[in-house]
Amino acid sequence: MALAHLVYPGAMHTRFHHSMGAYHLMSCALSELKSKGVAITEDEEVAAKMAILLHDIGHGPYSHALEHALVEDVSHEEISQLLMQSLNREMNGALNGTLEIFNDRYHKPFLHQLVSSQLDVDRMDYLSRDSFYTGVSEGVISYDRIIKMLTVHNGELMVEEKGIYSIEKFIVARRLMYWQVYLHKTVLSAENMLVKVLHRAKALAISGVELFASPALRYFLYNRIGRKEFENDEECLLQFCLLDDYDIMGAIKVWTGHTDKVLSLLCQWLVNRQLFKVTFMEEAEAEGKVTELKDKVKKRWGLTDEEAGYFVFTDTASLRAYDDHDEKINILFRDGAVRDISSIDNALVSHTLARPIKKFYICHPKI
Amino acid sequence: MALAHLVYPGAMHTRFHHSMGAYHLMSCALSELKSKGVAITEDEEVAAKMAILLHDIGHGPYSHALEHALVEDVSHEEISQLLMQSLNREMNGALNGTLEIFNDRYHKPFLHQLVSSQLDVDRMDYLSRDSFYTGVSEGVISYDRIIKMLTVHNGELMVEEKGIYSIEKFIVARRLMYWQVYLHKTVLSAENMLVKVLHRAKALAISGVELFASPALRYFLYNRIGRKEFENDEECLLQFCLLDDYDIMGAIKVWTGHTDKVLSLLCQWLVNRQLFKVTFMEEAEAEGKVTELKDKVKKRWGLTDEEAGYFVFTDTASLRAYDDHDEKINILFRDGAVRDISSIDNALVSHTLARPIKKFYICHPKI
Amino acid sequence: MALAHLVYPGAMHTRFHHSMGAYHLMSCALSELKSKGVAITEDEEVAAKMAILLHDIGHGPYSHALEHALVEDVSHEEISQLLMQSLNREMNGALNGTLEIFNDRYHKPFLHQLVSSQLDVDRMDYLSRDSFYTGVSEGVISYDRIIKMLTVHNGELMVEEKGIYSIEKFIVARRLMYWQVYLHKTVLSAENMLVKVLHRAKALAISGVELFASPALRYFLYNRIGRKEFENDEECLLQFCLLDDYDIMGAIKVWTGHTDKVLSLLCQWLVNRQLFKVTFMEEAEAEGKVTELKDKVKKRWGLTDEEAGYFVFTDTASLRAYDDHDEKINILFRDGAVRDISSIDNALVSHTLARPIKKFYICHPKI
Amino acid sequence: MALAHLVYPGAMHTRFHHSMGAYHLMSCALSELKSKGVAITEDEEVAAKMAILLHDIGHGPYSHALEHALVEDVSHEEISQLLMQSLNREMNGALNGTLEIFNDRYHKPFLHQLVSSQLDVDRMDYLSRDSFYTGVSEGVISYDRIIKMLTVHNGELMVEEKGIYSIEKFIVARRLMYWQVYLHKTVLSAENMLVKVLHRAKALAISGVELFASPALRYFLYNRIGRKEFENDEECLLQFCLLDDYDIMGAIKVWTGHTDKVLSLLCQWLVNRQLFKVTFMEEAEAEGKVTELKDKVKKRWGLTDEEAGYFVFTDTASLRAYDDHDEKINILFRDGAVRDISSIDNALVSHTLARPIKKFYICHPKI
Repeated sequence: MALAHLVYPGAMHTRFHHSMGAYHLMSCALSELKSKGVAITEDEEVAAKMAILLHDIGHGPYSHALEHALVEDVSHEEISQLLMQSLNREMNGALNGTLEIFNDRYHKPFLHQLVSSQLDVDRMDYLSRDSFYTGVSEGVISYDRIIKMLTVHNGELMVEEKGIYSIEKFIVARRLMYWQVYLHKTVLSAENMLVKVLHRAKALAISGVELFASPALRYFLYNRIGRKEFENDEECLLQFCLLDDYDIMGAIKVWTGHTDKVLSLLCQWLVNRQLFKVTFMEEAEAEGKVTELKDKVKKRWGLTDEEAGYFVFTDTASLRAYDDHDEKINILFRDGAVRDISSIDNALVSHTLARPIKKFYICHPKI
Repeated sequence: MALAHLVYPGAMHTRFHHSMGAYHLMSCALSELKSKGVAITEDEEVAAKMAILLHDIGHGPYSHALEHALVEDVSHEEISQLLMQSLNREMNGALNGTLEIFNDRYHKPFLHQLVSSQLDVDRMDYLSRDSFYTGVSEGVISYDRIIKMLTVHNGELMVEEKGIYSIEKFIVARRLMYWQVYLHKTVLSAENMLVKVLHRAKALAISGVELFASPALRYFLYNRIGRKEFENDEECLLQFCLLDDYDIMGAIKVWTGHTDKVLSLLCQWLVNRQLFKVTFMEEAEAEGKVTELKDKVKKRWGLTDEEAGYFVFTDTASLRAYDDHDEKINILFRDGAVRDISSIDNALVSHTLARPIKKFYICHPKI
Repeated sequence: MALAHLVYPGAMHTRFHHSMGAYHLMSCALSELKSKGVAITEDEEVAAKMAILLHDIGHGPYSHALEHALVEDVSHEEISQLLMQSLNREMNGALNGTLEIFNDRYHKPFLHQLVSSQLDVDRMDYLSRDSFYTGVSEGVISYDRIIKMLTVHNGELMVEEKGIYSIEKFIVARRLMYWQVYLHKTVLSAENMLVKVLHRAKALAISGVELFASPALRYFLYNRIGRKEFENDEECLLQFCLLDDYDIMGAIKVWTGHTDKVLSLLCQWLVNRQLFKVTFMEEAEAEGKVTELKDKVKKRWGLTDEEAGYFVFTDTASLRAYDDHDEKINILFRDGAVRDISSIDNALVSHTLARPIKKFYICHPKI
Repeated sequence: MALAHLVYPGAMHTRFHHSMGAYHLMSCALSELKSKGVAITEDEEVAAKMAILLHDIGHGPYSHALEHALVEDVSHEEISQLLMQSLNREMNGALNGTLEIFNDRYHKPFLHQLVSSQLDVDRMDYLSRDSFYTGVSEGVISYDRIIKMLTVHNGELMVEEKGIYSIEKFIVARRLMYWQVYLHKTVLSAENMLVKVLHRAKALAISGVELFASPALRYFLYNRIGRKEFENDEECLLQFCLLDDYDIMGAIKVWTGHTDKVLSLLCQWLVNRQLFKVTFMEEAEAEGKVTELKDKVKKRWGLTDEEAGYFVFTDTASLRAYDDHDEKINILFRDGAVRDISSIDNALVSHTLARPIKKFYICHPKI
């Protein structure tokens, strides 16, 4: 959960826990479907389990920071892909099925949907787990009941009619967890600061300034690494796998004493939890506010306009609780009818939840 | 929870537990409000706590059964009222304040709203408690967080802006608990059968048939007791207070061997958990179905049409998750604005949740 | 838990819950043992599960009250036995295996030991369940870990070496639950009062006094029923099966108004939770104290000496946390050695826990 | 919990959590005692809370590793002491009372006993917390009940008579947590390996070999730092406060590629969880075994005898569940008598639990 522990101190759980949990839920879901007569071979079962176990493998430390700062033009999904392919070569093709499922090219689409869709075991695990460890009890979902309600119809994953209320609850819980936890203002602030730290460090590195860094972190700071490099140079993936939170936070602690004012201030503030203020506002209002704040910041710390951009900036937090465009959550009625959860009678999940909600914000030091 | 344990065996908790729990939440809510500077005297505090402790005191055993069958024209709220007045006389007026709060005649309306409104501590307790004991984890609400978000504005109970998602979640949880638990088809069936048992017993008693019954139960079976009797005859309240589940279920067990076929069959089926089937359908469809089923029933058990009415009948389950007509849940924004939870931006609680949902059903033996 | 809810209000769970729970643990234990290569046929599995499901079937309402008061010379184990035999006849011998296991006549003794021994699934369930519902968290045992540590050696149930600490903890938890819950002074008081109520009622009934009672309760009050009657008259078992808490508590409520002073006072006190005081003391001290208290009681309520015996009496609470005489808990060491839990190195479960502890007490009204 | 997460993956909780928890329990304990009439001033309350909040402040990362490897002749208690004194100077004496309590020089000894004794809130918190996060449910203690049973007699912390069983349970739980968690063989192995890594790194550093390290870690590797340095050079404490897990584990990851074979192998094994085997045995048996294993190791990896000592070594795990020598847990009986928990009637906590148990072990690579 990246830096959410700065708001919810209990949130110390790891990606390893999440992968184990999602794997467990996949096992439960597959057993349930088999017990309902859905044909799933032993090979398919192993392949689907491997797919969920590896689904997040391309995430770097504090994933979004890495995606936006240390590497360029390459998403964690693409890195996951490359890592699985690499593992597959090492394992002489043992992950062929896993890759087909992961990439939705397998002829039983429900297996992909269990790994990645609006009702996948990934979401079921992270909502439950994050709700538990943050103590935000409202995020609790009934994953065991949802799994009992899963079924397959025409090869697609569906939910039995009597699971409707559990699904509604699942979507509402997700909406709540986003606004209360993942997009909490203090969490947004800390994660933005981390990105700025790495942007600054990378800019300094590229211009030849010396920075304390582990060899793996040095590799990504002093080189421009993007999709092309990942695809052409094995070394990229190797170095990437060596990187974790110890490299990033270990460096940031040392950088608190760096001679570059922008870098050292950002690092000191992050380490000492003196976080930027985040204010939601209309985009139109923001422009004047940004100029005003940048002026203050430039004066206070003697910065150039470009440097002040590390301290005062805007961004958008957005969430679509339910996306009724592609991969819908389908309900299978007792009479054989199939309807999207947002188009059933008395649907709770309708206009409001299906519309993307965007909140524009400005982020800056408290001065 | 009356007969919900026939579906959720864990649901053995009692009204005593609920009253203690609601009392505890009232104490927390009052502390919270006082810590925010809301003026609440010690007398008001005691009065409000007594009001919640006594709020359900007029419920009889398996309350709805009693309300619809053993007594006539008198609701459990009216009986609560009469009992509180009687206690108040005994206590020389010590409950004057409690009665004013209970009846919403006190000049600080938020105290009544804590006892009885769409966001009262009664609902907070029963949703949490019933969710816990049934194991329907989706009904979990964050009562502690909701209480932390309570505030008072112009004498009215309100919720602070940052509590919006918790309130949404509370309303969705309530909707889910109704359809999944309180109005579960098997629960509806059992509770309807219990009503029919008592209707039949009362009809037999009034016509002079001898029935096993404790003295208190006998009082309500062999006399027609309604509001007038409660108001004019102290004996009514006394006998009412002696009645509990032991009287009702103890009699039903004995009635399984009664010579009246309708009574003994209903009792046997209830005791042995051979419950009627409940089918939701459009009201228009139901008429023909009822005639058809009654004919079968008359033939099978040799009954008159009137007797068959105890075995085949229709009713409506209804719920309004949020009622935007009177006592709204108001949100107090940081800028001082007050808006109803159903009229805020991106409101989840809008048309769907504010509209009453009714489900018509038919109930009959499985033949 | 009979009347333990008078001290621990949450303790409303039922024998049905316990039987389901013990059945579940039996299923887990059998799976575990099979996975370790212990030979268990499908028939044996069903037989063992039936044995645990039925192990408590001969308990009457508030079991000890019934054993000591309503029936004579017949234990609940004997009634369980008779009921299983009766069911077995009805089911054409389908319970033959179950009866052999239950009576420890089956050639695989570990199956009986799972049903009834110092480490049976019965104890595992009731300790966990009672600890949960009373809130006495110290009674928590790790039933899942204990089950994972079970094994079979020479046909006997054993525990693997690394389970030693869990077993110690299990025995200490049991000791604690006895003194803190089952033998809690207020619980002892209430349960003794219930026994006295039934003794008095039976004495009155036998001497021809009329008492309100359901037909089943009447059968046991107005007749002397013992082992001989159970064995010779089918009616006994039939009536016994009709009896439950509703009969007993329903009658006691009515008896609060009986003309017999002893009966009505006992019933009023029990119903209104004005319980006798229990004081632990040396047996030698008690004699004088009893005489003194009886004198007060006789004077206060105008009673004969025999009648005063219902209000002032002595008894002994006793517990042996671990009995090292017969059916020991054996540990199987990695080197093949087998040693009783009380004779291993550094054994916690030794002299103290293996010695029966008895506490003599006197019980009387607070006057 | 240092490296216990290698066995119990959930154990990711931090010293910050523990300090907050112990602080909370201290608040509860002080409230309880005040409600019983024990005189505690507001200043004493703040001082005691500060003492528990700071009680572990001198622990370094993976504390035992640091104590035995990075620094010499100085315990974490002494460092805590120095840090508190330093804070006290900074705060102009605001921690005077805290220091008196911490050092047991305050005239109300029970305040020190709450911070540090056999029944302090430190133990109550860590047993509960570690039990929760490891999932070893048997370690659960009833801290809330124990706190309710606390009292003060002649200035000393005592437990009321009816708390005896909870205290017994507390001591047994502690015994179990030690053998099952803190002294678990795999945990012992990993923590020993970490110590060996740091010993080797320090030996290399002292002899002038270059090692990747953060500035703070470098300070402790390349200098000999002991009590004298801590007392005489402010810089020591400053550098010490900068050290945390990121420095240690960040370095170990890089050292996996170091040219020193001993260092790189130890680091690779630790990082890849290829842990040494721990075997408990009699000390007498061990000698021959060590020689034999060292020979194998020397041959396999071409090491000198001194180098092989990093791979094959012995140590002792020891625990005294209850120490009846000094600071006893005293029970205050209703009649005013005071007796140590190990000398009451039917004491569970007697010989066995009061005797220190030592287990000698040998640790070596699996070859």
